[in-house]
Amino acid sequence: MKNSLRIAYLGPPGTFSQEAAIRQFGDECELLDCRGIDAVFAAVESGEAAHGVVPIENSTEGAVNNTQDCLIDSPVQIIGEQVVPIEHHLLARDGAASADIAFIASHPQSLAQCRKWLLAHMPDVPLRECASNGQAAKVAAEDASAAAIAGNMARRIYHLRALAESIQDQLRNRTRFAVLGQQQAAPSGRDKTSILVYAENRPGALFRVLEPFEKLQISLSRLESRPSRDEKWEYIFFMDFEGHRLESKIEELFRRLGDCTDAVKVLGSYPVDA
Amino acid sequence: MKNSLRIAYLGPPGTFSQEAAIRQFGDECELLDCRGIDAVFAAVESGEAAHGVVPIENSTEGAVNNTQDCLIDSPVQIIGEQVVPIEHHLLARDGAASADIAFIASHPQSLAQCRKWLLAHMPDVPLRECASNGQAAKVAAEDASAAAIAGNMARRIYHLRALAESIQDQLRNRTRFAVLGQQQAAPSGRDKTSILVYAENRPGALFRVLEPFEKLQISLSRLESRPSRDEKWEYIFFMDFEGHRLESKIEELFRRLGDCTDAVKVLGSYPVDA
Repeated sequence: MKNSLRIAYLGPPGTFSQEAAIRQFGDECELLDCRGIDAVFAAVESGEAAHGVVPIENSTEGAVNNTQDCLIDSPVQIIGEQVVPIEHHLLARDGAASADIAFIASHPQSLAQCRKWLLAHMPDVPLRECASNGQAAKVAAEDASAAAIAGNMARRIYHLRALAESIQDQLRNRTRFAVLGQQQAAPSGRDKTSILVYAENRPGALFRVLEPFEKLQISLSRLESRPSRDEKWEYIFFMDFEGHRLESKIEELFRRLGDCTDAVKVLGSYPVDA
Repeated sequence: MKNSLRIAYLGPPGTFSQEAAIRQFGDECELLDCRGIDAVFAAVESGEAAHGVVPIENSTEGAVNNTQDCLIDSPVQIIGEQVVPIEHHLLARDGAASADIAFIASHPQSLAQCRKWLLAHMPDVPLRECASNGQAAKVAAEDASAAAIAGNMARRIYHLRALAESIQDQLRNRTRFAVLGQQQAAPSGRDKTSILVYAENRPGALFRVLEPFEKLQISLSRLESRPSRDEKWEYIFFMDFEGHRLESKIEELFRRLGDCTDAVKVLGSYPVDA
């Protein structure tokens, strides 16, 4: 029984991907720590994991284009999404005070994201760059003179206390995660659909792709173009829009897209995370 | 004189951002290593650096959305672009052989990107995660039993030898870098223009934005939507297209965009990097 709820996520432990996995599946699921986005896809494809969780938009953890490349090639479906606020805290062992801290450890990107707070509050404390925020939290758990900059998941895993909360310079930073599976998700009443569209690179190609959305009054929530790796196609568009693939209006959309594009790949229909 | 050619880039030394800076400005420029994308913008805004170089698309070095956020807020212009192939090599001190290598150091993302090669060629060698590829190259320079996975810039700076070249799983990975400055770039004859468009979030908004491009037969090379951080606007589109802002067709485009958008911000016109 437990086996069927094994969830692969982009590790190491303490990442926001792990937090997204627990938001989606709860505390009781068995988590499989993967060291690359393609390894998460591979675990879901092979059945080693029932589901996978990877960053898909606005990520600080890994290049989102890796996720896009995997979505182009993989048969797995997007069956859900989780939008996670990216909050960094200054974490230390229980009992440690700010005055005890001899150095602050974190991933270089997280140190950069908290630069203004560090300059204002701890300008003289040396910084130590780590390979991940999870590794930094481990350092703080083992050394009372260390503080780590990391998120809620790392705080929880390493039983750390926050000396200061939400210290990142940008207060409304969020990352969107995709939940992967082998089966399609059933309509929930409030769904979105993600697709890939292949179209020629010539003026007006995207305009024609958008015409059916305009005519059918379907709202796009995301659109991103990527140059194709394949010589044959010139352009790939990643599009998210309101509605489930089983709704008649969306079925009509796909019929019309068939006339004005080279190919469409449906990545999945799934409930919107508000 | 040297002062006017100081170039800020996203460090640490050995990054692909540094490689992009040298491709653009040559070996003789004075480089300023910045530890965050916003620090690069700040150096150009203050005049501390004449120009800046930051990843803008498909980056493994930093979240590109940081660059987008800075472009939204900053008065600096994009005055050029550099498209750099992302190649990882297995690097070691001169004289070291593969059989001498006791561990391989690199940033977790780079280790993940070379996973297939590592499994095929060095499956039993332990991996050590570092905060950056530059740091890993420094480890290899100091320890003959270490190899680093890093790019050409790190190889050059730390005088390392390649035990194996171009070992990343994806062979055609490239990152696009933006070159920043305070002055606009003059027309070169083969230019592109980057703009931000603010539009309402309702069905058809993007369709109407694209209509002038279709009518004027202007080719888009990139389009990306982002939810706005500002409540007032619902959507921001990042768009790149062929042409320079001083061409009459592009001036006409801006007149028409004024009628169908809430606001347009020109980020810059600059020569295309083929």
